[in-house]
Amino acid sequence: MMSWEEWKKKAYERMLRDQEIGYLDPDIFDVLMAFFNREKSFTYSSCSGRITIVDSILPWVRNDSTIVFKNHLGIKEDDIKDILQKDQVNRLWLISQGPILHVYTKDWDEAWEIIKISRQAGFKHSGILTTNKKGILVELRTGVKFVHLLRENSEQKVSEEEIKTLTKISNEVLMKGKEKLNLLKDLVSSVGNDSMQLRKDSEGKIKLNNKI
Amino acid sequence: MMSWEEWKKKAYERMLRDQEIGYLDPDIFDVLMAFFNREKSFTYSSCSGRITIVDSILPWVRNDSTIVFKNHLGIKEDDIKDILQKDQVNRLWLISQGPILHVYTKDWDEAWEIIKISRQAGFKHSGILTTNKKGILVELRTGVKFVHLLRENSEQKVSEEEIKTLTKISNEVLMKGKEKLNLLKDLVSSVGNDSMQLRKDSEGKIKLNNKI
Repeated sequence: MMSWEEWKKKAYERMLRDQEIGYLDPDIFDVLMAFFNREKSFTYSSCSGRITIVDSILPWVRNDSTIVFKNHLGIKEDDIKDILQKDQVNRLWLISQGPILHVYTKDWDEAWEIIKISRQAGFKHSGILTTNKKGILVELRTGVKFVHLLRENSEQKVSEEEIKTLTKISNEVLMKGKEKLNLLKDLVSSVGNDSMQLRKDSEGKIKLNNKI
Repeated sequence: MMSWEEWKKKAYERMLRDQEIGYLDPDIFDVLMAFFNREKSFTYSSCSGRITIVDSILPWVRNDSTIVFKNHLGIKEDDIKDILQKDQVNRLWLISQGPILHVYTKDWDEAWEIIKISRQAGFKHSGILTTNKKGILVELRTGVKFVHLLRENSEQKVSEEEIKTLTKISNEVLMKGKEKLNLLKDLVSSVGNDSMQLRKDSEGKIKLNNKI
């Protein structure tokens, strides 16, 4: 049976591999490291927040659905224009959403601590999803979400002005999510991370409190 | 110190009082009763799903924000038209969202059971929020959400055709949430509710397993 520390090591190696391949969201590495640097936490699958355009009956339905655009850093007017020039199968939804993180903790104290910190950072929909061999699984989620009907069918027209407004607002929403992600990174690095604090106090500089 | 059973009794009385005053969502009583009828659960604040139109900078921001329309059963084209005839302060968002329930359970077994049932009913974002003197607080939440920019400012025009489409889609989204709520009610009444099953077996008919 694998120990919690071995699961953490495995998750860390996976994250580095994902980063190398380019699977990791471009702007999420630092916040994931902030969690790995805590003695009793590690992250699993996570998303830094993104803008998507989805062709589907309803925004959350996966059947018969295609993601026709996805970007974690922003969207341009031309991206929307390009997509509107093509035909669609169902409805087109423009979705901009905040980050979602999945964190495994070693014990309950750390789980509640992570939830407390997350709420302070604006991750208001954070909670415990399950417990399993990897530990206690905590989901961190903001309320940052924009789910706009871009076009019901290919015959409809979306004006230049609308495209301009929607680009602006999608990016604005995305940025609000990134701000919360940055705040989370800072709080996770500093709050309730006792062993790191102790090492800082005794040696005068910050060292990672768990070497992987 | 109040016992868990006393908290449940208090919550039950509050729910009945809310129903009498008209504070309770019109279509939520049955599902709340399904939880109260379980030996180890009771609900606290809950929403059956609703359509709102909100005047605010961003959909989730509460500062400087006004709810200009709210209905748990649906929206009509005229409702949207009436609102568009008036001036707005910030942006107008048309939001249709699924139900959210808060359930307190007496122990962990019941908490995980409720989460399992909820996921089966399509409440995919369910998790444990906290534990306190009332028990273990479980939030049940679907992914059903539509957050549409109705109008950025009072000068913009929203066409008749758009109003028609948005009315249809808001109601369609709302209904998807209500379907999940109904499924939840059925599953909560039947799955893992042992004491109720036992009484049904021994007496040949269903009786409430906890008299309040």
